[in-house]
Amino acid sequence: MKIALAQLNYLIGGFEWNFEKIKKAVETAKTQGADIVVFGELAVCGYPPRDFLEFGDFIERCHAVLDQIKEISDGIGIVVGCPTVNPVPEGKDLYNSAYFIADGEIKHVQHKTLLPTYDIFDEYRYFEINTSFEVLEYKGKRIALTVCEDIWDIANNNPLYRVIPMDEMMKHKPDMMLNISASPFDYSHAKDRLAIVKANAERYGVPIFYTNHVGSQTEVIFDGGSIAMAANGQLHAELPYFEECVQTFDTEEMAKQSEPAKGQPKDKIKLINDALVTGVRDYFGKLGFKRAILGLSGGIDSAVTLYLAAEALGAENVRAILMPSQYSSDHSVNDSVILSENLGCPYDTIPIESVFHAYVDVLKPYFEGKGFNVTEENIQARIRGNYLMALSNKLGYIVLNTSNKSEAAVGYGTLYGDMCGGLSVIGDVYKMDVYALARYANRNGEVIPENIITKAPSAELRPDQKDSDSLPDYAILDEILYQYIEKRKGPRELIDMGHDPALVKRILRLVNMSEYKRYQTPPMLRVSSKAFGMGRRLPIVGKYLS
Amino acid sequence: MKIALAQLNYLIGGFEWNFEKIKKAVETAKTQGADIVVFGELAVCGYPPRDFLEFGDFIERCHAVLDQIKEISDGIGIVVGCPTVNPVPEGKDLYNSAYFIADGEIKHVQHKTLLPTYDIFDEYRYFEINTSFEVLEYKGKRIALTVCEDIWDIANNNPLYRVIPMDEMMKHKPDMMLNISASPFDYSHAKDRLAIVKANAERYGVPIFYTNHVGSQTEVIFDGGSIAMAANGQLHAELPYFEECVQTFDTEEMAKQSEPAKGQPKDKIKLINDALVTGVRDYFGKLGFKRAILGLSGGIDSAVTLYLAAEALGAENVRAILMPSQYSSDHSVNDSVILSENLGCPYDTIPIESVFHAYVDVLKPYFEGKGFNVTEENIQARIRGNYLMALSNKLGYIVLNTSNKSEAAVGYGTLYGDMCGGLSVIGDVYKMDVYALARYANRNGEVIPENIITKAPSAELRPDQKDSDSLPDYAILDEILYQYIEKRKGPRELIDMGHDPALVKRILRLVNMSEYKRYQTPPMLRVSSKAFGMGRRLPIVGKYLS
Repeated sequence: MKIALAQLNYLIGGFEWNFEKIKKAVETAKTQGADIVVFGELAVCGYPPRDFLEFGDFIERCHAVLDQIKEISDGIGIVVGCPTVNPVPEGKDLYNSAYFIADGEIKHVQHKTLLPTYDIFDEYRYFEINTSFEVLEYKGKRIALTVCEDIWDIANNNPLYRVIPMDEMMKHKPDMMLNISASPFDYSHAKDRLAIVKANAERYGVPIFYTNHVGSQTEVIFDGGSIAMAANGQLHAELPYFEECVQTFDTEEMAKQSEPAKGQPKDKIKLINDALVTGVRDYFGKLGFKRAILGLSGGIDSAVTLYLAAEALGAENVRAILMPSQYSSDHSVNDSVILSENLGCPYDTIPIESVFHAYVDVLKPYFEGKGFNVTEENIQARIRGNYLMALSNKLGYIVLNTSNKSEAAVGYGTLYGDMCGGLSVIGDVYKMDVYALARYANRNGEVIPENIITKAPSAELRPDQKDSDSLPDYAILDEILYQYIEKRKGPRELIDMGHDPALVKRILRLVNMSEYKRYQTPPMLRVSSKAFGMGRRLPIVGKYLS
Repeated sequence: MKIALAQLNYLIGGFEWNFEKIKKAVETAKTQGADIVVFGELAVCGYPPRDFLEFGDFIERCHAVLDQIKEISDGIGIVVGCPTVNPVPEGKDLYNSAYFIADGEIKHVQHKTLLPTYDIFDEYRYFEINTSFEVLEYKGKRIALTVCEDIWDIANNNPLYRVIPMDEMMKHKPDMMLNISASPFDYSHAKDRLAIVKANAERYGVPIFYTNHVGSQTEVIFDGGSIAMAANGQLHAELPYFEECVQTFDTEEMAKQSEPAKGQPKDKIKLINDALVTGVRDYFGKLGFKRAILGLSGGIDSAVTLYLAAEALGAENVRAILMPSQYSSDHSVNDSVILSENLGCPYDTIPIESVFHAYVDVLKPYFEGKGFNVTEENIQARIRGNYLMALSNKLGYIVLNTSNKSEAAVGYGTLYGDMCGGLSVIGDVYKMDVYALARYANRNGEVIPENIITKAPSAELRPDQKDSDSLPDYAILDEILYQYIEKRKGPRELIDMGHDPALVKRILRLVNMSEYKRYQTPPMLRVSSKAFGMGRRLPIVGKYLS
């Protein structure tokens, strides 16, 4: 039997957009001789649709797409994700389902059992837990359908759930399993995904066809990497990352393969680079925008952001604004000019000094007797924010935020100043990885001037300011932050790892005290297993470690 | 048997704060002769603790409080909420539990079964669903413990769950039920709460003692209103709203009562007023701040916000900043001065014109050939934001945001300008209710000048601007927004209600297109059943109704 994996870039609520893509992929799969073509989880409406699922009208439009899909299902089986209205009053109003459509009819529906409700996932907010397990028959084969998380709770020391859906399905002796997923990228997730699909094949002894989404939905990025896995747990094919594709595999050939195929390369920094480029491209493309603007400071963060944006949108569509203050060094301006010219990005220099003096004059009576402090630093940062927003409003740009994860974590940033923007590009990238991205950008020759990479980081908001005046080395800071944020290690565990107790206390306090700032930051493209934003939910008012 | 309801204002992660309150309440309950004292859901750590629950250290500190509670439990039974570590690897790591402690020991633990995972609630993110139902015996009585949501799924046409915990507990023939809750305020919730407790009493024929939290946790406000309900469904007592209290009731007296007690008054606007005052007071008090600052425009929104803040913090602690532009009318300034003086709030006038001209001068080369438009309006709004933030930074205020729900819904506001602040006071109050709050503020004589209430709303950011130039009447707008946001009515349903199809389409499009703005607004005190913020989750990039 021939199975096509259709790895597509959907648009949430874009019913026409999604159907047109599905239709083309069905045609391609037919051309490739596929018996069945497999799309992603909730493919008709995109993932995650979030509270749109609470609208009856939205669900009806999902089913209108299913009706359109029926009409193109002659001679091919189509597996596609769509919400289903729960037919009984008890329980949540919907199921998250895999539909099998062929010859103009819905032949089979299997609901999702394991509903991820952690990190960015909120599925139990919308969906009822499935308790019924059947397989379908098509062209003489018995086929088990599973939805994403349904296959993830095996080979796990700490299973999140109490039921293993595929264990139940095995009672019906399926010949193969088709899994429809919407499994977001993080820089170590593709490896985990291959391991779990392999573990399923080994446990059940059936070939597995796993289709993922590709492309970005606001801050959530899907990398694709769909999988054909032989029954013995040998990889047959892993589809490319960050690319749409439709590819057909023959179960008979898979049964005959003698050694595992090679998967896609998994270099962390290249993956993050490609994910961020995808994230920027889709944010603009799906909103119908073309052009970005950002503040270029001469530091590493805005340099890497400019590079990534130029990769995503084309250099000519990314405008750099240099906004020196009286505290900016000459090299900051020079380095920024060289970088813009290396990339081919348009740039302008708009000093902030005159506006800053206008503010200081007006506010002088209220600040009487108080010296220069963080207030004046923030005023300068907010003037820059106001410039960028004004240029954006007048000329039709989206402002890109250039903050990194280390500074977002400890609250080193000015709300409405350097924390402004429509999208944060590197807000989920720790400072040390920002450096690695810069090195990666220069892999074929210097694009980001070496001086930007090697100089000591500084906000340049007062004379001779350096990040190291108030923060530990980024290598240490990043490690503490990673263990606290990604690994949920508490103070005692961090100290047991050998970190200085006073430093641990201070860093955790900074993180917890600046929750109020992160609450108001733009969405941050998610590339780690724990990004700030919808996947990390903490109270602003609270006393824990603060 | 004598049961004390202890309705307290907890602090999330404030283990000492919470224990001290619990300890005092236990002493009071003992003085009142109580056999048992009942605290709220997750009282040891406050509610909602959100992702703090993912830290082992946090859970250990919860249990350290339980140990302290054991030490004060001689001669009294204490019912208190605390998370429990799931003893088996399968399932989520925690249960949300009610503990019964007496004579220095934990005598009984009952886990929560129904885990609210909708609106602001994320309980299935953290907690495993309970499947075991027991009652405890104390002083010859059989007592059923339930946790909040456990009692909410009866008498419901569309039950969210498939199990009714108290139905299971009735197999053990309890003499009474004690429910520990953390049930947030919205302006119609107290009525629903009384109805559900009554329905439980009528269904099971046992007296019910229901304890709620009181006070505010960032944007989530608890109103208290704890309940003693007789076995026949007659109300015995409803505790006050927005006040801490400890009150003891005798089951024997309850059994003898001949007619239902009167509950607390439930005037919508008074409730919203009191909730917002509580919300502001606790936001400041729990963060350790005393003083607020806000921009006073001469319009109704900032007037009502100033009034509420003065009620919460004392007039002397709320500073009003008048920031007229060249487009501001004289009456705006005059009305603002009168209002500040009526309330006794300090105020200052800081014009924005000189700074605005400095911006315009600098940006002129980039704006060549383009006329005055929304860009210049936004620059002015952001200058005001920068003033307020600078005063806040230099002098130690928290900025209060003054946006209302109607404008937040349709995106009529400037990010980083009038949308700035640490807390949005009336962001969950539609414009028509803002007017009603102003009338309420004047109930004992004019505080908010009549002219502020009766003049046509305007942002005064260009000559002769009026809200009605670009928006329908607020009465119509608010009704469409309410049906769309609170009631999840789609376009067809709104049109069927008689609303103009073109207007419906336009309004829904405005709401959906401005998701990106709301993503970056401060937390908004929640007073309705569907506020913007953590309880309403929508993608920014999407195509639905936009």
